[in-house]
Amino acid sequence: MSETTTTDTTEDLRARALKLDAADPLAGRRALFALDDDGVYLDGNSLGALPVHVPARVQDVLTRQWGELRIRSWDEGGWWTAPERIGDRIAPLVGAAAGQIVVGDSTSVNVFKAVVAAARIASGAGEGRDEILVDATTFPTDGYIAASAARLTGHRIVPVAPDEVPAALGPRTAVVLLNHVDYRSGRLHDLPGLTAAVHAAGAVAVWDLCHSAGALPVGLDEHGVDLAIGCTYKYLNGGPGSPAYLYVAERHQAGFDSPLPGWNSHADPFGMTPEFAPADGSVRGRVGTPDIVSMLTLEAALDVWDGVSVDVVRAKSLALTDFFLECVEAYAPAGRVTSVTPAAHAERGSQVALRCDEAEPVMRRLIERGVVGDLRRPDVLRFGFTPLYVGFADAERAARALAEVLAETPAAA
Amino acid sequence: MSETTTTDTTEDLRARALKLDAADPLAGRRALFALDDDGVYLDGNSLGALPVHVPARVQDVLTRQWGELRIRSWDEGGWWTAPERIGDRIAPLVGAAAGQIVVGDSTSVNVFKAVVAAARIASGAGEGRDEILVDATTFPTDGYIAASAARLTGHRIVPVAPDEVPAALGPRTAVVLLNHVDYRSGRLHDLPGLTAAVHAAGAVAVWDLCHSAGALPVGLDEHGVDLAIGCTYKYLNGGPGSPAYLYVAERHQAGFDSPLPGWNSHADPFGMTPEFAPADGSVRGRVGTPDIVSMLTLEAALDVWDGVSVDVVRAKSLALTDFFLECVEAYAPAGRVTSVTPAAHAERGSQVALRCDEAEPVMRRLIERGVVGDLRRPDVLRFGFTPLYVGFADAERAARALAEVLAETPAAA
Repeated sequence: MSETTTTDTTEDLRARALKLDAADPLAGRRALFALDDDGVYLDGNSLGALPVHVPARVQDVLTRQWGELRIRSWDEGGWWTAPERIGDRIAPLVGAAAGQIVVGDSTSVNVFKAVVAAARIASGAGEGRDEILVDATTFPTDGYIAASAARLTGHRIVPVAPDEVPAALGPRTAVVLLNHVDYRSGRLHDLPGLTAAVHAAGAVAVWDLCHSAGALPVGLDEHGVDLAIGCTYKYLNGGPGSPAYLYVAERHQAGFDSPLPGWNSHADPFGMTPEFAPADGSVRGRVGTPDIVSMLTLEAALDVWDGVSVDVVRAKSLALTDFFLECVEAYAPAGRVTSVTPAAHAERGSQVALRCDEAEPVMRRLIERGVVGDLRRPDVLRFGFTPLYVGFADAERAARALAEVLAETPAAA
Repeated sequence: MSETTTTDTTEDLRARALKLDAADPLAGRRALFALDDDGVYLDGNSLGALPVHVPARVQDVLTRQWGELRIRSWDEGGWWTAPERIGDRIAPLVGAAAGQIVVGDSTSVNVFKAVVAAARIASGAGEGRDEILVDATTFPTDGYIAASAARLTGHRIVPVAPDEVPAALGPRTAVVLLNHVDYRSGRLHDLPGLTAAVHAAGAVAVWDLCHSAGALPVGLDEHGVDLAIGCTYKYLNGGPGSPAYLYVAERHQAGFDSPLPGWNSHADPFGMTPEFAPADGSVRGRVGTPDIVSMLTLEAALDVWDGVSVDVVRAKSLALTDFFLECVEAYAPAGRVTSVTPAAHAERGSQVALRCDEAEPVMRRLIERGVVGDLRRPDVLRFGFTPLYVGFADAERAARALAEVLAETPAAA
């Protein structure tokens, strides 16, 4: 590529970025977040940025609700009902009607509740279902926790690539645990089609939404998902390690038999009776005392979603990742990076993963320049595109920085 | 009692309270908490008061660590190692050497980890141990969770009063789950003696420290406790629903086989390997991503313990509850309240529980007067004495208010 062509290309792409940003219906949302223009934050798929109004809201939780009202806040401050109330705030973002999502505990703990409960639902539906199919490419914790659930409930784990799930389903399948978007490649799996296949085999579908909620439409109710879990600190911007959530479809709530029946899931929690009697509804997914400071931090953070359409988010996400890939193609030295994120929109989440032999030094240098993505060892560069606060000029700038860093970093032998 | 006698008694008790407060080595700690002199807060055994320095520290976590450093705080801000670091802060308060306590998840979730792991340790020690003994007077969540653990591991639950544990122990006993202090009566159980009896029977002892940690010496290491759990929002003042902790004695760590083996307990969490390989040490008790905002709120709150001796706390606690009982005896109309908290120091925690037929309206009216205790249905008034911020004048004032409220509240027929 000649110097002239490069300059022309750069000018063209920068001009297009500015036009795209000017036409972006979500452009105004960026001001809701604590972001400066010194860098480009493309790690919102790991930790979402801070919404600027959150610290003041948390101060109120600490100084007035805890500091002054103290124990009265459990009732008067709405602490006790926070898990269901915040679940209902998340519900429209994942296509769920109210009353089916409860917030609390970590994603791992919710995977445990969901997989054990799903195995029990499957046992109730018939004999001989002793297999739990787990996405072989899953984020590891899902696999570790599913294996523990299988061991405790007398099931066996069958690791299977999501594409191969239909062929692996059979009369022995009890539960299928899948990721909506793969954390490494950014591949979006076919939730409607796979859920239908799981149901056709008489099994129960559990979906992990960590990398899709807040980035694209999920349609839990529409597609008949049985159980789902997800974190709230990525595209939902709830804060570091903020509480996760559990979705139990209304039709399964009466049969939801939790392996963690803490006092918060009791029909009469303050009755303090020695016998457990489960509450109705999403409350049944609760366990212990809710972690109020983190939970109300998340609740405040969810305000950034007021008035946002997930379809608009999805359209921008696809346009952003398309544009970033185009810029990388135009700028990066040939052969140094290869996208492992699918080109087809139907198979793409909201991140771009690039395979690169020099991934570790390249990401280190990018971060030094203020372009923050992350690394999945050994050779994947991950760039997350959060449509609420990443723009097209950010994408162009990140691709340009990547090309510069690649040019400075010798190719591995 | 004549009017004159009552006045004399009141003057005498008030004068003694002032003397006791003047001689209290912990009196200066009260200023560390957000408390005013309008009321008496005796519900620190449910929700500890706010330490005044905490909101500023949490602001830093939100605005700088999350808002500016974002993902870098996992390393640079010490987020990743917070569960073990904060565990080591709690350790001296419960008589544990460093490296045995990890913070995270709710008390209920930690009860589950501890009971399942204890059952596995017991199975490893020999065949035929299929019973889990559980305190029949326990806070209900411990019983519910232990029953779930028993169901999943093929054990059966034997409910037993703590006094009767020695007689109930036998060759079938795998695990004994006990509360150090009973949440309702405030009775302190004999942790050293019962632990020794459990060990003599070849079983594993799990202690719930929710109502003792921060109020009296526990001596986990000294007394050879196997596993323990506790909350941090009562006497430890960590905030509403702050993360709980898990103690695994060093000798059991290599055999600690968690039912919740999330990625945070992996020997190489960022290796993202499909096979689970547990970390060494207390880290093995972790599960998912730590809930940073709540966890660092707790960490800040623990500063109030710097330089405090738990023995001094215990001495004040006993003096406070003695004095409160004496004031209640002197002031309250005869026969209206009866202490269910043991008179013997060796059997008393840091709360006073009074049985009262009119408990509900009495507590409501006390709270209206600014004396905040709580109610355990149907007939128990609970008054928690947190030695770091409750004084002797507070105890006298609360007893006087109680007597006034009882005089105004007609006795039940």
